[in-house]
Amino acid sequence: MGLSKPFLDPVSETLPGPRNLITDVPGVSVGQTTIQDGVHNTGVTVIKPAPDNVFLNKLTAATHVINGFGKSTGLVQINELGTLETPIVLTNTFAVGTAQNALVKAMLADNPDIGNTTSTVNPVVMECNDGDINAIRDVHVTEADVLSTLDQTAETFEEGTVGAGVGMSCYDLKGGIGSASRVIDIDGQSFTMGALVLSNYGFLRDLNIYNVPVGAKLAADKAAQKQKEKGSIVTILATDIPFNERQLTRIAKRASVGITRTGAFIGNGSGEIVLAFSTANRIPHYPKTELTTHAAISDDKFDRYFRMTVAVVEEAVLSVLTHATTVTDRKGQPRLSLTDALDQYQTTYQDNDIARLQQQLGI
Amino acid sequence: MGLSKPFLDPVSETLPGPRNLITDVPGVSVGQTTIQDGVHNTGVTVIKPAPDNVFLNKLTAATHVINGFGKSTGLVQINELGTLETPIVLTNTFAVGTAQNALVKAMLADNPDIGNTTSTVNPVVMECNDGDINAIRDVHVTEADVLSTLDQTAETFEEGTVGAGVGMSCYDLKGGIGSASRVIDIDGQSFTMGALVLSNYGFLRDLNIYNVPVGAKLAADKAAQKQKEKGSIVTILATDIPFNERQLTRIAKRASVGITRTGAFIGNGSGEIVLAFSTANRIPHYPKTELTTHAAISDDKFDRYFRMTVAVVEEAVLSVLTHATTVTDRKGQPRLSLTDALDQYQTTYQDNDIARLQQQLGI
Amino acid sequence: MGLSKPFLDPVSETLPGPRNLITDVPGVSVGQTTIQDGVHNTGVTVIKPAPDNVFLNKLTAATHVINGFGKSTGLVQINELGTLETPIVLTNTFAVGTAQNALVKAMLADNPDIGNTTSTVNPVVMECNDGDINAIRDVHVTEADVLSTLDQTAETFEEGTVGAGVGMSCYDLKGGIGSASRVIDIDGQSFTMGALVLSNYGFLRDLNIYNVPVGAKLAADKAAQKQKEKGSIVTILATDIPFNERQLTRIAKRASVGITRTGAFIGNGSGEIVLAFSTANRIPHYPKTELTTHAAISDDKFDRYFRMTVAVVEEAVLSVLTHATTVTDRKGQPRLSLTDALDQYQTTYQDNDIARLQQQLGI
Amino acid sequence: MGLSKPFLDPVSETLPGPRNLITDVPGVSVGQTTIQDGVHNTGVTVIKPAPDNVFLNKLTAATHVINGFGKSTGLVQINELGTLETPIVLTNTFAVGTAQNALVKAMLADNPDIGNTTSTVNPVVMECNDGDINAIRDVHVTEADVLSTLDQTAETFEEGTVGAGVGMSCYDLKGGIGSASRVIDIDGQSFTMGALVLSNYGFLRDLNIYNVPVGAKLAADKAAQKQKEKGSIVTILATDIPFNERQLTRIAKRASVGITRTGAFIGNGSGEIVLAFSTANRIPHYPKTELTTHAAISDDKFDRYFRMTVAVVEEAVLSVLTHATTVTDRKGQPRLSLTDALDQYQTTYQDNDIARLQQQLGI
Repeated sequence: MGLSKPFLDPVSETLPGPRNLITDVPGVSVGQTTIQDGVHNTGVTVIKPAPDNVFLNKLTAATHVINGFGKSTGLVQINELGTLETPIVLTNTFAVGTAQNALVKAMLADNPDIGNTTSTVNPVVMECNDGDINAIRDVHVTEADVLSTLDQTAETFEEGTVGAGVGMSCYDLKGGIGSASRVIDIDGQSFTMGALVLSNYGFLRDLNIYNVPVGAKLAADKAAQKQKEKGSIVTILATDIPFNERQLTRIAKRASVGITRTGAFIGNGSGEIVLAFSTANRIPHYPKTELTTHAAISDDKFDRYFRMTVAVVEEAVLSVLTHATTVTDRKGQPRLSLTDALDQYQTTYQDNDIARLQQQLGI
Repeated sequence: MGLSKPFLDPVSETLPGPRNLITDVPGVSVGQTTIQDGVHNTGVTVIKPAPDNVFLNKLTAATHVINGFGKSTGLVQINELGTLETPIVLTNTFAVGTAQNALVKAMLADNPDIGNTTSTVNPVVMECNDGDINAIRDVHVTEADVLSTLDQTAETFEEGTVGAGVGMSCYDLKGGIGSASRVIDIDGQSFTMGALVLSNYGFLRDLNIYNVPVGAKLAADKAAQKQKEKGSIVTILATDIPFNERQLTRIAKRASVGITRTGAFIGNGSGEIVLAFSTANRIPHYPKTELTTHAAISDDKFDRYFRMTVAVVEEAVLSVLTHATTVTDRKGQPRLSLTDALDQYQTTYQDNDIARLQQQLGI
Repeated sequence: MGLSKPFLDPVSETLPGPRNLITDVPGVSVGQTTIQDGVHNTGVTVIKPAPDNVFLNKLTAATHVINGFGKSTGLVQINELGTLETPIVLTNTFAVGTAQNALVKAMLADNPDIGNTTSTVNPVVMECNDGDINAIRDVHVTEADVLSTLDQTAETFEEGTVGAGVGMSCYDLKGGIGSASRVIDIDGQSFTMGALVLSNYGFLRDLNIYNVPVGAKLAADKAAQKQKEKGSIVTILATDIPFNERQLTRIAKRASVGITRTGAFIGNGSGEIVLAFSTANRIPHYPKTELTTHAAISDDKFDRYFRMTVAVVEEAVLSVLTHATTVTDRKGQPRLSLTDALDQYQTTYQDNDIARLQQQLGI
Repeated sequence: MGLSKPFLDPVSETLPGPRNLITDVPGVSVGQTTIQDGVHNTGVTVIKPAPDNVFLNKLTAATHVINGFGKSTGLVQINELGTLETPIVLTNTFAVGTAQNALVKAMLADNPDIGNTTSTVNPVVMECNDGDINAIRDVHVTEADVLSTLDQTAETFEEGTVGAGVGMSCYDLKGGIGSASRVIDIDGQSFTMGALVLSNYGFLRDLNIYNVPVGAKLAADKAAQKQKEKGSIVTILATDIPFNERQLTRIAKRASVGITRTGAFIGNGSGEIVLAFSTANRIPHYPKTELTTHAAISDDKFDRYFRMTVAVVEEAVLSVLTHATTVTDRKGQPRLSLTDALDQYQTTYQDNDIARLQQQLGI
């Protein structure tokens, strides 16, 4: 259920929400389909930003490209219009076309006006390359996989080796899906920010958790490591704070700090893309008037939102690592989870720092 | 054959290439599949930037988003890495997923290393919304349509109501595919720039050709006009001039001047996206050394390349209008070509300016 | 007084405000200092965006760089924070440092907290190169010139050869300062958009006014023309429509269409920079609460705001040309105004199109 | 001399150059003027990118804005043209105008063609706000200060409380100037990358050095801390690797990882701006031909350049902290150096981690 997870947060002065998941943001739900049949280790994760029709009532959104070695779709229109009008589908790189088709068809089914009496729709699909573990060339994900995932979103969901995260790696260990949240008081009202990451980035030797250079320790003991970054990390940030598009962009930029806080350096081949949305100020597709009023927030105290963003993203990455389980890749080789890698290491080394870290992480 | 077309170019001091098509740039070829069965009026146009394997030997490329109400894919990675590594597929908005799937599969077939021993591939698909004329909700284009188009590119191709352009409109008249080229001497060597547009933008009343406000004249005579821009224009610029990524971006930005020279103002709903590539300095996927040398060009005399860009894009738009033929839309209504609209107008008005324009345009 | 000017607007369906100047936007005022002593032909133009303390109550703002061959300052912070917190100073390229110093000192004088108990301030200075007409190497503008201009803003102001525009050229004719406005009804309320341009761009042979290729006609008669664009155009857009930062950026991008509507192609050496601000939703430097509400506007009907922007910028450029007067440049050569150039031309040619244009333009 | 400094580099697999300064990049020199008279604690630092006339032979350059709460000038033109054509001047926020004036005048003195027979020049001035320590409202830096600094650049220079860094703070401790370099072998040739930072950012409680949360320890012992980020960090990256503009932008983006590796989160008020240039492929102002050839480098192995960038920036920040000396601020309060802060802390706590850190840092 992903409810129990590490919490050691040096940067934010805020506490997690009840689930410590992105779904702590009211209205946000997540669905996942896991595909595992030996050589195919992949899947689909859907983030539904609101329970109602998001084409008719869009959400304010922004994106930030940390490193653009990626194939996500839908960013151009979000940047222009500042709105998200579909659920967000995460999957593997070669399933993007299929996911777009499924998402378009789901939107058409719900909205008879799209492509008929009104404009088209902008499907948002984001991806990482799970080709090390998944036989990605088989283009194995189907439209049915995506459509059923769209229909099964809920407020609780699994983390780790699940959904779009099944075939992902993180710091050469098993990666996948992770999430976290933080709650903050603004002018006496309570607001939430949540992150969900699809984590597939990093080199083992760089991994650093809570000031323990765990990657360097593990790497010294492990011969085979990748020589070239082929990973990626997709970050979804959700909040009910009424940030506008410019402010969401500023927030999205801080995801990079959370991502690199565990030691990564933004590799050449790592597609690192952030999408941030606010559930405040829904934007009607058919506005009754042009003029309206929006809830707004000053930039004056943004430091605390930036701290919160860094913390929630770093913790989402840690939540990937602690929830992931060892998987056998398409070539029959194990991709170790952090849990298993630390256990193996400790059978030889009994390192005090590692032992303390295992305790802190609850693994 | 598209070889004969208007040529009245106040801005560039250069002449067209032998075909006055984007394929005048050596190595560039174009293929098209037209789908017309009553309610379905759509298709596929492919621009192949080089005759050999473009994944193994990529092309320098850049993009520019004039107005981002669009769903093109592949731009993020081009902007990051400065390379184009697939053919470019143009189609309708809801065929993007299908086109991506087909393009990925074609690339996988040609490159057994992709997704296995090397990285994935970045499929570039660009689109306009042909929903006024085509029953776009049926998602009618198939992967087979795209795959066969990829196999049929040639140095000559049709313009107007063809390929991805079948269901497009331009200034409320029939739009579609148009192309043009210009040849320029640099330091004693001859170079070519070509444009291909998928043209689906503009309001009739704004259309201005060669200083004749033809749209205002036609509009005065025509009751029904769209009230909201739902169009788009995709512009592909090809050249063998050794521009680098920054310079290609500068060139791409001037496409906007060519597009608006016929009277448009970049509408809210118009997805206007430019992709520019150079066939010089191919970029190997597996470089033998890190260091190399590139042909390069000074920015010092860029005015003439900007003039050439404006001219070639404006003329590509005019070539759409003069080559397009009247089409019956999905509701059984005719979408008049410029040729037919002017003929109808002249039966009543016998306007001297229009008569001169018809002669200049050869329609 | 700049009140009478051309008005033939094919694109916008709106009418000018009472002055047809940027100062039709309530609260906006303009001041100018003209420096002319033979070789020095330069000056200062100030746009004050609001009558009160704009550091304490900032304005929502955005910028757009059409072509970045320019030295304007302050853009980086506007893009990040979305606010304008000083008057805007326009001057020549080498007076930017002096103008910054003066503007900082004026802000310090008005705000004892700046640089003491609160942050610094972001001075916005924009420029064009008047070096063809002005002995720019003398760095002749003084801080006193700028300070006195800041103190003398008013709701009426001169256009043409005045203020920062004294030494500017436009289409190789005399350029300078121009302005225009449009009034629009939104949900039953009246709003205004105004433009002010410092116009120093374009090649004579490209000039096209109201479908008359006047530049080509004049150029055929005139030997000496510049071979390389060294100009620029700065555009200030002011409005009381409650656009947010993203929307102001979209508006700012349409200035380019207005600028090129008279025939230009965005030259290599032309620094073309747009700053747009809204007087709605003032942003307090010391907010009492973080949460607030803002007036907002839907993107749904943006076509009409884009049309209005194109029209107001095109007309501001025309207003430069019709108000400018012939000046003797630093080498003793005349830089002809459009008025004088057309008069000279007509003494020989008696061209009917030019005669009609003179009448339309009232020159 | 700045030659001795910490070297514990977990990320790069490269070694420093002979001086471990930005001046290890051949041709790069640095000059500094320190101004300290009680309330005025400020100065000027100049980076000269090449020993010859950089206007006549420009350098390839790019910029990256991490957080745009800053007033640096010259970025717009660098982004457009990809070239640096002046030395870079660093100073305090309110000295930017003065530094621009001085830099323009120095360029005019060296280049009689500027503003006369050729274009103007783009002065690059970057800044941080030293208003906590320096009476910045006095606008105390003079053009003479800047001009003399431009004349005194050398291959060796001081770090810490010197030049533009005199009044800067870093993690609430004494900040200032820091530098580092790395040498790398590419295809058998040796290349160098150097960084120079003007460091004025961060909150004490976030400071983390070599996995020791030194800031949290010090902060627990220290009552008064700033509540709002008003800092900034300017990063200059120099290299003789033949990166092009796009690649320099990618390199510049990794500076952010180095900056945040000591615990910062990119605060709201922190102007964090990076300028990267390459000394390869000089760009002539008066090219003899348009076509030329450039040394170029593949993106394929960029991971190691990214690692090198992160390392060199992190170490430049550490070099600020270890070289800075305690200063009395404009209100008579001490701004402690890291060295003094740790010494004070240890008199009470004798913390083993701190003791080890002191030894590692050599302070």
